[in-house]
Amino acid sequence: MKPSELITQNTTAQIYNIIRTAGEINRMGITRLSGVSKSTISIQINKLISLGLVEEISPENSEQRKLKLKIREGIGQVAGIFLGTTKLKAVIFNLDMSILCEQEYHFENISDPVETNSRIIEILKELCDQYRVRRLWGIGLGFPFPVDFTEGKPDSPPNVPLWHGYPLKELYEKEFSCPVLIENDVNVMALGEGYMGSTRNEADFLFIKAGTGIGAGLIIDGKIYRGAKGCAGDIGHIPIDGSTVLCHCGNKGCLEAVAGGKALTGLAKEKAESGESPFLAQRLKEGCELSARDINDGAIAGDLSCIKLVQDAGKAVGQVAEKLVSFLNPSSIVIGGGLANFGNHYIGAIREAIIRRSLHLATYELRVCFSELKDMSGPMGAGTLILDHIFSSKEFPETLKRI
Amino acid sequence: MKPSELITQNTTAQIYNIIRTAGEINRMGITRLSGVSKSTISIQINKLISLGLVEEISPENSEQRKLKLKIREGIGQVAGIFLGTTKLKAVIFNLDMSILCEQEYHFENISDPVETNSRIIEILKELCDQYRVRRLWGIGLGFPFPVDFTEGKPDSPPNVPLWHGYPLKELYEKEFSCPVLIENDVNVMALGEGYMGSTRNEADFLFIKAGTGIGAGLIIDGKIYRGAKGCAGDIGHIPIDGSTVLCHCGNKGCLEAVAGGKALTGLAKEKAESGESPFLAQRLKEGCELSARDINDGAIAGDLSCIKLVQDAGKAVGQVAEKLVSFLNPSSIVIGGGLANFGNHYIGAIREAIIRRSLHLATYELRVCFSELKDMSGPMGAGTLILDHIFSSKEFPETLKRI
Repeated sequence: MKPSELITQNTTAQIYNIIRTAGEINRMGITRLSGVSKSTISIQINKLISLGLVEEISPENSEQRKLKLKIREGIGQVAGIFLGTTKLKAVIFNLDMSILCEQEYHFENISDPVETNSRIIEILKELCDQYRVRRLWGIGLGFPFPVDFTEGKPDSPPNVPLWHGYPLKELYEKEFSCPVLIENDVNVMALGEGYMGSTRNEADFLFIKAGTGIGAGLIIDGKIYRGAKGCAGDIGHIPIDGSTVLCHCGNKGCLEAVAGGKALTGLAKEKAESGESPFLAQRLKEGCELSARDINDGAIAGDLSCIKLVQDAGKAVGQVAEKLVSFLNPSSIVIGGGLANFGNHYIGAIREAIIRRSLHLATYELRVCFSELKDMSGPMGAGTLILDHIFSSKEFPETLKRI
Repeated sequence: MKPSELITQNTTAQIYNIIRTAGEINRMGITRLSGVSKSTISIQINKLISLGLVEEISPENSEQRKLKLKIREGIGQVAGIFLGTTKLKAVIFNLDMSILCEQEYHFENISDPVETNSRIIEILKELCDQYRVRRLWGIGLGFPFPVDFTEGKPDSPPNVPLWHGYPLKELYEKEFSCPVLIENDVNVMALGEGYMGSTRNEADFLFIKAGTGIGAGLIIDGKIYRGAKGCAGDIGHIPIDGSTVLCHCGNKGCLEAVAGGKALTGLAKEKAESGESPFLAQRLKEGCELSARDINDGAIAGDLSCIKLVQDAGKAVGQVAEKLVSFLNPSSIVIGGGLANFGNHYIGAIREAIIRRSLHLATYELRVCFSELKDMSGPMGAGTLILDHIFSSKEFPETLKRI
C-alpha cells in the first residue's frame, strides 16, 4: 500500500468510527470531532457512502436543514455471545449496534469445553440461518473465567479446569471464517456499560461484577485495561480489614469469601437455621435452597437479618472500592452482576464505605450506580469489542475487503 | 491549514518523536515503528533535517553502512524544575534530553508562593544567562503538593496552604514566553523513571514515592494517568489492616501514618528513649534530631530495632501495593523518595507482602525495584513532560514556529 493510501485509510476509519459512535451526526460535527477539514471529510464520506457503509438521512426536525449521516443498517452483522455458568445469551447486532435478534439458552453444565462450544456454535449457526445472516463480520465472546486475550484461550479457569488452554479463538474463527475475540465476563460487561449503559459518556470508569465471584473491569480511555498479564481487575481476593473468614484460596478475609454470592447463601442458611431470620427460616421450611434472591426478598419484606446481610455485603465491596477510588480516581463505579438486584440497602452501604475514607476530591463528584443494561451489558460489550476491532485503523482495510 | 497539511504535520510529529525516543535510529527502524512507507519517511526526514531538528550521523561500527538519524543537539532547550520541601533541582535539557546544566539549591522555607517562585524564576534566568540559552522552548515543573494540571495551579496543598490556587502556569508562561506545564512531584518522578530509569522499556507501571508522605504515580501507555479529578495515586490514606495509629486526616491506620517518614522518626525516638534500640539511643545522646537516615544507619549496623522498623515500614507499603497489584496487574513497581535508601530489608518486606496475597499470574514476573534515577527522576520527568507536550501532534505546528 502506498503511504498516502495508508494515511487515507486511517482517516476513513476515523471518520467511520465517529459516525458509528455518534449514531447520527452532520458533517460539521465530524469536522469538529476529527480535526480534519471539510473537504477531506467530504471525500471520505463519499467513499463510505459508495461502499454502502454509511447513508445520508434527512433530519426529523425540518428546521435543521443539514443532512445527517448514519451507519447503514443491515449490510453486515456481528455476534455478541455471553456465557454464564448456567445460561448463554446470544445477540446478533447490525453494524450500528441495533439488535437483529437476541436469544437466551439454559446450560445445565458447562464443565466440558468440547460439548459446550459445540452447542454454542450450533446455536449461533441456527440464529444466522433463521435471521438470514449470510456471513458474520466478526464474533465477540465473553466467558466466566480468566482468559488470555492475545491467545484467545482460557487461562487456569478455577471452576472449569478442563477449559484451560482450549483454543476458543481458533475454533470460532475456523467455524465462522471471521475475526473472533475472546474476553472474560466482567471486561465485556464493563465495555458494554460504557457503550450504551450508565457510563455511556465516560471514558474512564470502574465496573464491579458482584455475583458468585466478585471481579472488576477497568475502562481507561474507552478501552478495556488488561494489565501486564491480562489479570487486571482481580479484586475478589483483596482482604477485608479484620475479617477472618477462610477463603478457598487459602487466605483469610478475601472479599469474595466475605461478600460473594456463595458466602451470602451460606450466611443465609445459618441465619435461617438459628431462627435469627424468621423470613429465611420460613423459606427454608418451605423447602427452598436459599439463594441471594431469598435474602433480597427478605430485605424488601423488612427482615432485619436480611437487611443486615445485604448491608454488610455492600460494606465489604465498598471497603475494597474505597482503596481503588483513592488510587485511581474514577468518574464512576458501576455495580453489575447477580447481587446488583440487592437495591438501595446494598448500594447505600457501598457508597458510605467509599465516602468514609477516600479523599474528598476523589468522591464529591463520584457516581456509584447500578448497571443500566443489566444482563444485556455482557452481550452488548462482546458486540462492541468485536466492532471496535474490525473498524480499528489497523483492521479497517481487511474489513473493507469483506464487503 | 489544508487537510493534507494537517495529516502531514501529524506524520512529521510522529517521526520526530520516534527519533527522539529511540535516540539513534535508521530509516528502516522508523519505517517499522511508524507503519509509514519509506518514501513518505524520506520526505519527512528531509523536512526535519532542513528545519535543523534532526541530523544524520555515521554509525560507529563501520560494518553497519546505514546512516543513523538523531535529534540535533544544541538547537533548543527546555527546563525541568523539581521543588522539594527543602531543596530545588533545576536542569536545562537539550531537545535530545542530554543535560546542558544541572544545579541544586537549598530552600529554607517554601510556605510563601510569591517569594519562593520569585527565587525559582531568578535561578532559572541566571542559569539561562550563564549557559547562553537565548530562549527556552518550554518548562516543566514538579511541586510537592496536589496540582490541578489543566489549570496549572496548586489544589488545596495540605502543608503550604498559601499556595492554593496560585497561578503558577500563568506566571512562568509570562516570565519566559514559552509553554509551561505544572505537575505534582510523584507524577513527574514516575514519568522520568519511565523515560530513562528502571522502567525505560515499560509502558504501564506504578511508581511509589515513600518519603515524609507516601504517594503513587501511575503510568499507563507511557503517559501519566491522572483520573477524573487529577488525584489518582493518592495512596497515603489507604488503611493498613489492623492498625489503629491515628492519622492527621482523622482516620486510623492510614499508610502514611504507619510508614511515612514522619511516623518512622516518631517511632525511632520512642525506641531511642526506651533504650529498645541501643543504636538510636546513642544517636539521641549525641544530640541528633533522629531522622530516617539514622534508622537506616542502625539497620546497616545490625541494630535489631532499626531492622524491624525498616521491615515493618516495607510491610505496610507492600500491603497497600498488593491490593494495587491485584487490581492493576502492573509490570513493575518502582520505589523512590527518601525512604528508598532503606535498602534490601525494606524492599524485601515490600516484595514479601505483595507476593503473599496477590494472584500468581500477577506476581510471577512482577518487578519490584528501587528508582534508578534517584533524585534525578523528578527533573528528568519534568523535562520529559514538557518535551512530550511541545512535540505532540497538536502542539508541533506551534513549536515549529518557534524555531
